[in-house]
Amino acid sequence: MSTVALTLDEVYQLAYACLSKAGADHANADAVATTVQRAERDGSVSHGLFRIPGYVATLESGKVNGKADPQPELVTPALVRCHGQNGHAPLAIARCVDMLASAANTCGIAALSLTHSHHFAALWPETEALAERGLVGFACVSYMPMVAPAGGKEALFGTNPISFAWPRPNNIPLVVDMATAAMAMGEVQIAARDGHKVPIGTGLGAQGELTDDPREILKGVLLPFGAHKGSAISMMVELMAGPMVGEGFSFEAAEEDNGDGGPPQGGEFILAIDPKVMGGDNWAEHAEKLFEKLEAIEGIRLPGQRRHKMRKDTGSREVNIELVEKLRGLAG
Amino acid sequence: MSTVALTLDEVYQLAYACLSKAGADHANADAVATTVQRAERDGSVSHGLFRIPGYVATLESGKVNGKADPQPELVTPALVRCHGQNGHAPLAIARCVDMLASAANTCGIAALSLTHSHHFAALWPETEALAERGLVGFACVSYMPMVAPAGGKEALFGTNPISFAWPRPNNIPLVVDMATAAMAMGEVQIAARDGHKVPIGTGLGAQGELTDDPREILKGVLLPFGAHKGSAISMMVELMAGPMVGEGFSFEAAEEDNGDGGPPQGGEFILAIDPKVMGGDNWAEHAEKLFEKLEAIEGIRLPGQRRHKMRKDTGSREVNIELVEKLRGLAG
Repeated sequence: MSTVALTLDEVYQLAYACLSKAGADHANADAVATTVQRAERDGSVSHGLFRIPGYVATLESGKVNGKADPQPELVTPALVRCHGQNGHAPLAIARCVDMLASAANTCGIAALSLTHSHHFAALWPETEALAERGLVGFACVSYMPMVAPAGGKEALFGTNPISFAWPRPNNIPLVVDMATAAMAMGEVQIAARDGHKVPIGTGLGAQGELTDDPREILKGVLLPFGAHKGSAISMMVELMAGPMVGEGFSFEAAEEDNGDGGPPQGGEFILAIDPKVMGGDNWAEHAEKLFEKLEAIEGIRLPGQRRHKMRKDTGSREVNIELVEKLRGLAG
Repeated sequence: MSTVALTLDEVYQLAYACLSKAGADHANADAVATTVQRAERDGSVSHGLFRIPGYVATLESGKVNGKADPQPELVTPALVRCHGQNGHAPLAIARCVDMLASAANTCGIAALSLTHSHHFAALWPETEALAERGLVGFACVSYMPMVAPAGGKEALFGTNPISFAWPRPNNIPLVVDMATAAMAMGEVQIAARDGHKVPIGTGLGAQGELTDDPREILKGVLLPFGAHKGSAISMMVELMAGPMVGEGFSFEAAEEDNGDGGPPQGGEFILAIDPKVMGGDNWAEHAEKLFEKLEAIEGIRLPGQRRHKMRKDTGSREVNIELVEKLRGLAG
């Protein structure tokens, strides 16, 4: 794969130019470009510039409003609600985080219900933003039906990621971010391309049979991680990011989607907890005792460490040259 | 196995008599006996009378206070805190549920931090109690280190159950209740006794090797369900039921425990969400669309249905005769 070196500023500028050309206003283009830049910075390539064609497609098809002006509202002392105005999620989230954090500081716990939004990024940006404010963060979204419930053979659940962040004063936060599918669709595609097998349990072939051949799974469906238990968690995500916040299920979003290749409309549930209010003064040093035990185990790394290690490198990033050329075309 | 038929009233009376004889006052004996009776009623035998010797042991050793008088406190409009006074959890939970539900009705979301309590039951009683009040419920506790983190070989996490309940007006709630261990220790013991194999991934043998022989796992450790992803969820439970609510980790609880065979001291985190406040008027009928899709899949049953089916039978329950004789001895 040929690559070209882009500085992080160039990553941002390229993303911004594509979004702007496709009709996004400054606030929206800036929010999405910042999210994309952070993903490239942290080595989360599949959520970086790779996603720009999808973002652009939704602006060009008119499915997503590039001039969305979402305004968070404090519905109760502990509940922030935000109508996303059919924009991409990053602007709405950026505008909600401080209000959500403030509510959590006041009440010990607070939640955000985000609706009418199009989420196409990782979840760690929002949970990490809460952890940077000293809060425990949790977030989930449902995304595109491509996972069969355990016991079923047809796609019903989305890949339905969840994220959890734990703040560590004077240290980088612990951040979990994972799909509740056994494997991301992109990883299955790469295994198929490279001729590798995948573990049994990753997905089913076209006839509903368990298989370790990724080419068969691409004709069939993914499975949830962890069989019935993971399936229950994926179902919880459908409910929490759906009717609980006033939005639809992933199968409904797909039915209503125009198929432009970008993210469908959906909801997001974000939870913020102030451990100082809930757990008392000793929470932070106490938590370190678990992390010490975990880090003493050979081969175990706390979740989120790799991203932060990448982040220390402020230099340029190698980006697929064909992607960069494509984006330069989109930027005009 | 020889059994004896006990009415549900006799189940309660037998449990109550044992607890009372061991020093529990009326309020505490009543709360635990009610929890045990409900477990027997719902066919959740491993949380029924089977647990009474453990409850009694903690009262006799003095580890648990049979006269605990826990008083929930509304710390903020959305946060209930309760010091369990080192009693068994059922009384504290029963006293907290209405305050927690009321806070969720007011704020849309509310949480309970329960500390200094001894939890030895399933989690569905508390999440289901919230669902019966029209709320989405979530609860977790950490329990006894017997699970190795994915990548490790020694027990660090508890079996760390989580429960999630979704209210269904005019229908029985959907209730998930599951350990984040791949298999409950009791099931491994039964497989060993009966000479059955268990799935690879259930646990490790004494040398840290993957094995499908349950006898080897009993010399080693359990694993989390779902490999690294389930391990991350088990870690979240350690943090949420530990320092986040002001309590310890399962490994700390075990270190401080007197080894009387009953439950160690620990914390519990309970979340209650009012979907009407957060999601709007349409939440309930909307959610049914997912349940219809799930129930249309052959072989899939919504979580919690079996318990409710058992519950309709108000007749007597068959209980192991040796257990009943033992309990009659304890009741004096």
